[in-house]
Amino acid sequence: MANRTDQLLRSAWTDEPPQLPPQALRWLRQETGLTDAWTPTRGLTAPPSELPDKAREVLDGIVGADHVLTDGPGRLGRTGGLSYLDLLAHKGIGEVSVPDAVVLPANPAEVADVVRACAELGLDVVPFGGGTSVVGGVKAANRSIVLDLARLDQLVLVDEVSRLAVLQAGMRAPDAEKALAEYGFTLGHVPQSFERATIGGFAATRSAGQASSGYGRFEDMVEGVRVATPRGEVRFGIAPASAAGPDLRHLMIGSEGAFGVITEVTVRIRPVPRIRRYEGFVLDGWDQAAEAVRALAQDRVLADVTRLSDVDETRVSFALTGGLKAQGLGAYLKLRGVRQPCLLILGWEVRDKRELAMRRAAAMSRLRGAVRLGRVLGEAWRHGRFNGPRQRDALMNAGVCVETLETATHWSQLHELYDKVRRALTGSLQRPIIMCHISHAYETGASLYFTAIAPRSIDDPAGQWQRAKTAACQAIAGIGTISHHHAVGVDHAPYLPGEIGDLGVEVLAAVKNTLDPAGILNPGKLIAP
Amino acid sequence: MANRTDQLLRSAWTDEPPQLPPQALRWLRQETGLTDAWTPTRGLTAPPSELPDKAREVLDGIVGADHVLTDGPGRLGRTGGLSYLDLLAHKGIGEVSVPDAVVLPANPAEVADVVRACAELGLDVVPFGGGTSVVGGVKAANRSIVLDLARLDQLVLVDEVSRLAVLQAGMRAPDAEKALAEYGFTLGHVPQSFERATIGGFAATRSAGQASSGYGRFEDMVEGVRVATPRGEVRFGIAPASAAGPDLRHLMIGSEGAFGVITEVTVRIRPVPRIRRYEGFVLDGWDQAAEAVRALAQDRVLADVTRLSDVDETRVSFALTGGLKAQGLGAYLKLRGVRQPCLLILGWEVRDKRELAMRRAAAMSRLRGAVRLGRVLGEAWRHGRFNGPRQRDALMNAGVCVETLETATHWSQLHELYDKVRRALTGSLQRPIIMCHISHAYETGASLYFTAIAPRSIDDPAGQWQRAKTAACQAIAGIGTISHHHAVGVDHAPYLPGEIGDLGVEVLAAVKNTLDPAGILNPGKLIAP
Repeated sequence: MANRTDQLLRSAWTDEPPQLPPQALRWLRQETGLTDAWTPTRGLTAPPSELPDKAREVLDGIVGADHVLTDGPGRLGRTGGLSYLDLLAHKGIGEVSVPDAVVLPANPAEVADVVRACAELGLDVVPFGGGTSVVGGVKAANRSIVLDLARLDQLVLVDEVSRLAVLQAGMRAPDAEKALAEYGFTLGHVPQSFERATIGGFAATRSAGQASSGYGRFEDMVEGVRVATPRGEVRFGIAPASAAGPDLRHLMIGSEGAFGVITEVTVRIRPVPRIRRYEGFVLDGWDQAAEAVRALAQDRVLADVTRLSDVDETRVSFALTGGLKAQGLGAYLKLRGVRQPCLLILGWEVRDKRELAMRRAAAMSRLRGAVRLGRVLGEAWRHGRFNGPRQRDALMNAGVCVETLETATHWSQLHELYDKVRRALTGSLQRPIIMCHISHAYETGASLYFTAIAPRSIDDPAGQWQRAKTAACQAIAGIGTISHHHAVGVDHAPYLPGEIGDLGVEVLAAVKNTLDPAGILNPGKLIAP
Repeated sequence: MANRTDQLLRSAWTDEPPQLPPQALRWLRQETGLTDAWTPTRGLTAPPSELPDKAREVLDGIVGADHVLTDGPGRLGRTGGLSYLDLLAHKGIGEVSVPDAVVLPANPAEVADVVRACAELGLDVVPFGGGTSVVGGVKAANRSIVLDLARLDQLVLVDEVSRLAVLQAGMRAPDAEKALAEYGFTLGHVPQSFERATIGGFAATRSAGQASSGYGRFEDMVEGVRVATPRGEVRFGIAPASAAGPDLRHLMIGSEGAFGVITEVTVRIRPVPRIRRYEGFVLDGWDQAAEAVRALAQDRVLADVTRLSDVDETRVSFALTGGLKAQGLGAYLKLRGVRQPCLLILGWEVRDKRELAMRRAAAMSRLRGAVRLGRVLGEAWRHGRFNGPRQRDALMNAGVCVETLETATHWSQLHELYDKVRRALTGSLQRPIIMCHISHAYETGASLYFTAIAPRSIDDPAGQWQRAKTAACQAIAGIGTISHHHAVGVDHAPYLPGEIGDLGVEVLAAVKNTLDPAGILNPGKLIAP
């Protein structure tokens, strides 16, 4: 088991490096002034483990010696997540902290024992699920252990009457879907990290999937959590809703392993939809297109997947994938009077044709003026929906600085936020392409998801992105949330006081101090040191 | 202002006492063995205020002397809420703790000042909104002040684009609806306490309205809160959704004035529905009827109001309100083969006929076998929907022990919970009538709302209900939540550790200690002393 996981985790960096198609590379060079593919030379090696003998003995006693890894590759594979800076680090740029051991408990009880033991040993613990954090949420520290939840991969229980399932935290999303599908159910949570991310990670980070308009954010699916803390286990959530004081589930959802290790999640499940219908549309101009999405959201007729790209993202996605076909599409759109095409993907996942017809008609009536591009484009998007990380790898290998960031705000401030973040990124990167989409719409507001592409700095590739990211975070502060679905981790922790106040951070610290008085759990994440 | 509020608050006990219609009284005597109307004799008088001069001076300085009430009636009117035991106490049965003063700040800044000053003075503060708590949530203490939010009654801001409104916490629900209606919007939050309850109270208690299936629970409407704590103000909620750590709004929602005083709430608003359509149906047998509601909830075609009465509640409501008409209805239902009538009220609040037709058809297709009683019955329910408290007063004046309690659980445990609570109440009251309804249905479960009626004990009227309530709470523990929408207050605090664990209670205490280190805010509520 440990080996399988290990393989999976390393694959992001050791697989045959993905390459951009030649015409995409040509186009990029033209657009951004990208000069030459730049390949880092230095590989990584792990320093020897300094896990004290006493600790090794205790951990071996709990999980068995086979499940305490101290080898270099095993530890290197869990040094961090998948942010651009993490990937740079794995290419030899920047510092990497390597844990002294990777511990793989078999079940919630073993997790509880490991956490308690580490508190006694004074050993920092970084909980690790799919390792897909892009905000430093699973950044390892020197003199720490990584608690890998890969062996907690069981579907514990399905309650078909209540439509609930109990899933172990280390279960990866595709495995969870496979197991639930045997009962005819789905979770419907499909973030871009779907292929690798875990149930516990979704809960710990307040994940939102691409179908959040239909299935809700992950927090909307969580009916209960089981959490191992150094002070003992807690379980929150006994009913579909409660007025028995503050909702402590919402304290654990988004706690990023800093309060405890989520070991089981009770989730709401739904029947697998019989029909999935994805379509592409083009609207003219970002402002008008965002207004259309607002109408869908506020009239509560959103498709289950509703995703609107801005003009630049539309242009790039047509250019990078379309080739000749995209040229034809461009001509067609011009003919239809569309000057500033914005691609809108709508996806319905429904029980029958009648529901599809009703919901589709309701949406269509709010999209007057939209040019229908049909199901081919919608399906193409659906099939490529998890390709983002691979595309990013290809771009990185072509010498590109490429990263994403996201935020959300209320509708009345959306355009201001959009403009400010774009300006911040444009101003701090040279000849960048800044793309944006709305992928999560609510009655009162929406998310904005930015992708920045620029020729990578040769001298200071990490600093190049750090400066751009800082500028973007400062632009977000006071208008939007510092994260709509990527979480806080290390990277956003400095901005949290601005969002919830110093007193809010003190509240978080008080909760942490109650559950983790030794402060061993994921230190530096969520709450800045 | 103070006087108006004062009048309103006293009215529950000083108005002409409501009386049951003679035929209802006859029916009750027959059913329960109720013997004679029993009227308590002792009225209440307030002990003199012992507010220290220094405190008086400080409070006068903040809110003005006119807004610090120390007169008897003013203080007596805010000694507690509207539970059966509260009402008994106001009839002279049981102990009443009377605060030393009622303080009425004008705005959030004054609330913050009062709270901070009281922390310095070591003076306990009981925040007070509509005073409708039925769980001891606003029970005053001797040597405390009541912080009455009645003057925070302003609509601060309407953001029509984002469909958000900022409401001051002391605004009563009808006033909030009136103010929002001028902009064409509604909140749609209509609990039975609607006529008196306040926006801040809804948030502080995790209220759920009768139309929760359509508009959501109050927590679903809250986009942001502004809270005055002894350590300063906090504001949570900058975006429609966020992954910036735990959702601290959910720590304030349901905090019952123990962490801080909610002064403003930012709420999601919706256009006033153009069509309201309420209909009555009868289903045969509780189990089958509950299954029908489950189908509506799990297929996500609930009406905005969905309320199912069990056989006894249906029987009583027909008997108490129907008279001859009810007899005709009974015969008709028998003719239609209905042996165990369960009344189902469905209410749709929609934008147009098309939406009504679609949603109604979707619901109807899950209600095969239901007997339609039409709109007259639905409308009758709608117009009487806030009459519960008045009916209870009439029953009390007729010598009846009458109280409600509620819980919620997942569908697979609903019948077990229903049976256990019924048995507990039946076993601890003599010749009672126990009624129940589902008024809040979710995909994964539902609420159960019980009403108990029995001849009031002459010797020990308070103890009679306390024993029944204890039995019911013990029956709920481990299967359902101790409260679905009445909150914790004093009455449910002993059961909270059973629901969230001792460690969960420690977390709440740590949060309280951070925001209210002197422990002056609503002591004894939420967290048992």
